[in-house]
Amino acid sequence: MAKELTPRSENYSQWYNELVVKADLAENSAVRGCMVIKPYGYAIWEKMQAELDRMFKETGHVNAYFPLFIPKSFFSKEADHVEGFAKECAVVTHYRLKNDPDGKGVVVDPDARLEEELIVRPTSETIIWNTYKNWIQSYRDLPILCNQWANVVRWEMRTRLFLRTAEFLWQEGHTAHATREEALEETEKMVNVYADFAENFMAVPVIKGAKSANERFAGALETYTIEALMQDGKALQSGTSHFLGQNFAKAFDVKFATREGKEDYVWASSWGVSTRLMGALIMAHSDDHGLVLPPKLAPFQVVIVPIYRKEEQLEAINEKVEEIVNKLKAKGISVKYDNSDTKKPGWKFAEYELKGVPVRLALGPRDLENGTVEIARRDTLTKEVVNLENIDQYVADLLEEIQKTIFQKAFDFRTEKTTKVDTYDEFKEVLTNKGGFILAHWDGTPETEQRIKEETKATIRCIPFDGEKEEGTCIYSGKPSSQRVLFALAY
Amino acid sequence: MAKELTPRSENYSQWYNELVVKADLAENSAVRGCMVIKPYGYAIWEKMQAELDRMFKETGHVNAYFPLFIPKSFFSKEADHVEGFAKECAVVTHYRLKNDPDGKGVVVDPDARLEEELIVRPTSETIIWNTYKNWIQSYRDLPILCNQWANVVRWEMRTRLFLRTAEFLWQEGHTAHATREEALEETEKMVNVYADFAENFMAVPVIKGAKSANERFAGALETYTIEALMQDGKALQSGTSHFLGQNFAKAFDVKFATREGKEDYVWASSWGVSTRLMGALIMAHSDDHGLVLPPKLAPFQVVIVPIYRKEEQLEAINEKVEEIVNKLKAKGISVKYDNSDTKKPGWKFAEYELKGVPVRLALGPRDLENGTVEIARRDTLTKEVVNLENIDQYVADLLEEIQKTIFQKAFDFRTEKTTKVDTYDEFKEVLTNKGGFILAHWDGTPETEQRIKEETKATIRCIPFDGEKEEGTCIYSGKPSSQRVLFALAY
Repeated sequence: MAKELTPRSENYSQWYNELVVKADLAENSAVRGCMVIKPYGYAIWEKMQAELDRMFKETGHVNAYFPLFIPKSFFSKEADHVEGFAKECAVVTHYRLKNDPDGKGVVVDPDARLEEELIVRPTSETIIWNTYKNWIQSYRDLPILCNQWANVVRWEMRTRLFLRTAEFLWQEGHTAHATREEALEETEKMVNVYADFAENFMAVPVIKGAKSANERFAGALETYTIEALMQDGKALQSGTSHFLGQNFAKAFDVKFATREGKEDYVWASSWGVSTRLMGALIMAHSDDHGLVLPPKLAPFQVVIVPIYRKEEQLEAINEKVEEIVNKLKAKGISVKYDNSDTKKPGWKFAEYELKGVPVRLALGPRDLENGTVEIARRDTLTKEVVNLENIDQYVADLLEEIQKTIFQKAFDFRTEKTTKVDTYDEFKEVLTNKGGFILAHWDGTPETEQRIKEETKATIRCIPFDGEKEEGTCIYSGKPSSQRVLFALAY
Repeated sequence: MAKELTPRSENYSQWYNELVVKADLAENSAVRGCMVIKPYGYAIWEKMQAELDRMFKETGHVNAYFPLFIPKSFFSKEADHVEGFAKECAVVTHYRLKNDPDGKGVVVDPDARLEEELIVRPTSETIIWNTYKNWIQSYRDLPILCNQWANVVRWEMRTRLFLRTAEFLWQEGHTAHATREEALEETEKMVNVYADFAENFMAVPVIKGAKSANERFAGALETYTIEALMQDGKALQSGTSHFLGQNFAKAFDVKFATREGKEDYVWASSWGVSTRLMGALIMAHSDDHGLVLPPKLAPFQVVIVPIYRKEEQLEAINEKVEEIVNKLKAKGISVKYDNSDTKKPGWKFAEYELKGVPVRLALGPRDLENGTVEIARRDTLTKEVVNLENIDQYVADLLEEIQKTIFQKAFDFRTEKTTKVDTYDEFKEVLTNKGGFILAHWDGTPETEQRIKEETKATIRCIPFDGEKEEGTCIYSGKPSSQRVLFALAY
């Protein structure tokens, strides 16, 4: 298979699609809109999961598991929620197949119709709040801080690997609190955890903020988000945390006895990130040669390739490499040694470049003589020859350096691609010719937001938390505004 | 809620059902046959997952993820497979709901019928072999050693928490090989991994063996199993590994170019364990006071309870406990300190007994004076007062001791409950009055097996790998037999 990628400048979208498949991350399956996550892609997801799970547990959360199916009637209980999800869900109507009386295959058994249809969960608020009802009697039972790692299904019509698939993997946190303040605090805490993860592990800088009413989660009073900028100048919503107020408690009648001896509905938050993060990771850093992975999430951080002509040279190299591998592993660095004899070094170099392995070591007979090794960085595509003596410390430092460099590059790109505009003309001009994030004044109404979206396709990504208060006038309506909001074209 | 359990001797089945719920492991959900795995239960499952995942990776496997849905037509491609699974599966027929024109709720949108129905996976051989077709061209692409952690659905009519549920969590390994020998070797390797895990982590002794033809997986040429004995004398199949021959390769047309330049179908294995293991763990060790957990799988291995009357006493205890906690953690021991003031020590003792925490430390003012601590073992319900000085090493040793003791107790129980019989009368007598494993000669025919099952409900659990060859005559037919097989009533 040709491993060359369409250059980003030529067709960014095609570059992405090719990269996902050629780097063995994922592929489309026989089921419309559902993907197969291949071992190399899944190994990155596992790294993400491990870090996020650790962060959730450090902030007091526990994992649990709730049913895949949701009774149809549950959906009707929260009006906004059903509006948001009913139009794109997989519905189970039968529980048995039988042999086709007219042929060789199997058909749905009409006698095995479910009394009530079941929906494959698109998100689990309803089934979880129906469960929480039995777990909560008094303030002593609160807070409940549960997370679940699960698959969910949303019947999207247009799908793209990782970015938008009918089935995807995610985690969904669902918390229950005695007060509005606590639930809001939790909502904010978790968007901060997501931002921390995005920046310090994925090396993707993000803007934290609140969604406008139009863009909120179906059933939420507030949705907080982290927004990342991709190399094509489009935004990618990478994680959301919702303050649900008492909406689901009311829908499922979840009340508790307060400390003061009164009765009140329980307050809620929910928050999630998904395999969509894989899309963000790929698009934020990679180049025309392939993936660029931050060392903290690379399935293996270092690959070692032997360079030799004769079999007996390989033996000496193998011996030296074993030493190196042991030293690196002792420093907690993950290493793959590829001494397979079916591929040439040049093929291997291209392959591991495509797969984004952060550091490559190449070792030949001359290196053995000199006590050196050739070391190549994936992010900068630079090479140098270094002494083998302190190779472990050298590589450890280099991995840290790469992690920082990748983040800084993305950060600088975002800075360059963030523009303040004060007029609608300027807005449209920047959107067309430059792209990226646009900071502009908005009058705060859903109508204005909707018109701008219809006219330009740009949406309000968020009202940034750290945006300075600044008096101005809405670029569209001219009405007063007290803060710039973040616009962009988005995935 | 009353935490007392029905004694096992009175009603074993009720004891199990109560224990699962009262120890906060799992509960039934609003969806028929689907369970909610509660945080404490899920924490045990996570420990199991982590160990198994490590063992899979150490034996060369990688994780991947395949779609939840399987096109209906895929099921018809392997005849035995469809026979085994079509009668109990959840079928997705529609992809949208719409507002009920006659009411407040939502109804299935008849205009959103799928062209081909999708089955919620009961197991993934078909979708995976359809995928492998594109991954395999030559012997160089083999072996493929993939595992997936996933949920599956089998529409069982009678369900019990963990033991038999419509949805359950599991892992399924699916491997592809160039030769029959390699695939068989893999099948055997994985049943050994399962046995290792059951015995050394769950502390549950198991018998390894091959299933008789009647009891094989739908589509397999051989099924290897590990069989455990529960305290009520019934067997529990705890993990299976299947040699699939070329059945799925033929059904999905997966051929490869051999090293010799010929073309052949690929050889396959699949293997899985599920949340059913939770049932085995609970039933193998627990007693009338509640759970008994092996230290290697306990969510926390040690609980510390302060004993005090006045607030100022607590402060001094807190201080000392912090020291102890740090020492224990430094030894890799997981600890929970429960100094909540809403519950009395007696309540806490009962609660952690119910939850099977292996070791409990209780610390009061007198202990502070004497430099001692009261230490209680969950498995033996014994207590002693020990010096605090080397408490970390003492607890570490004790946890090891408990792990061994629990295994030995289960092992001795199984030995006592394993009976060799030589006549059918004896067989029925042991089955009725003693239960347990019965080793008896069988003529090897499905007909005899079926009749014994119909007459006694006992099934052949396996043909043990390590059973000695021994000439004898079938207890039912009187025909010759060369090895005793393992019979039991089973879950």
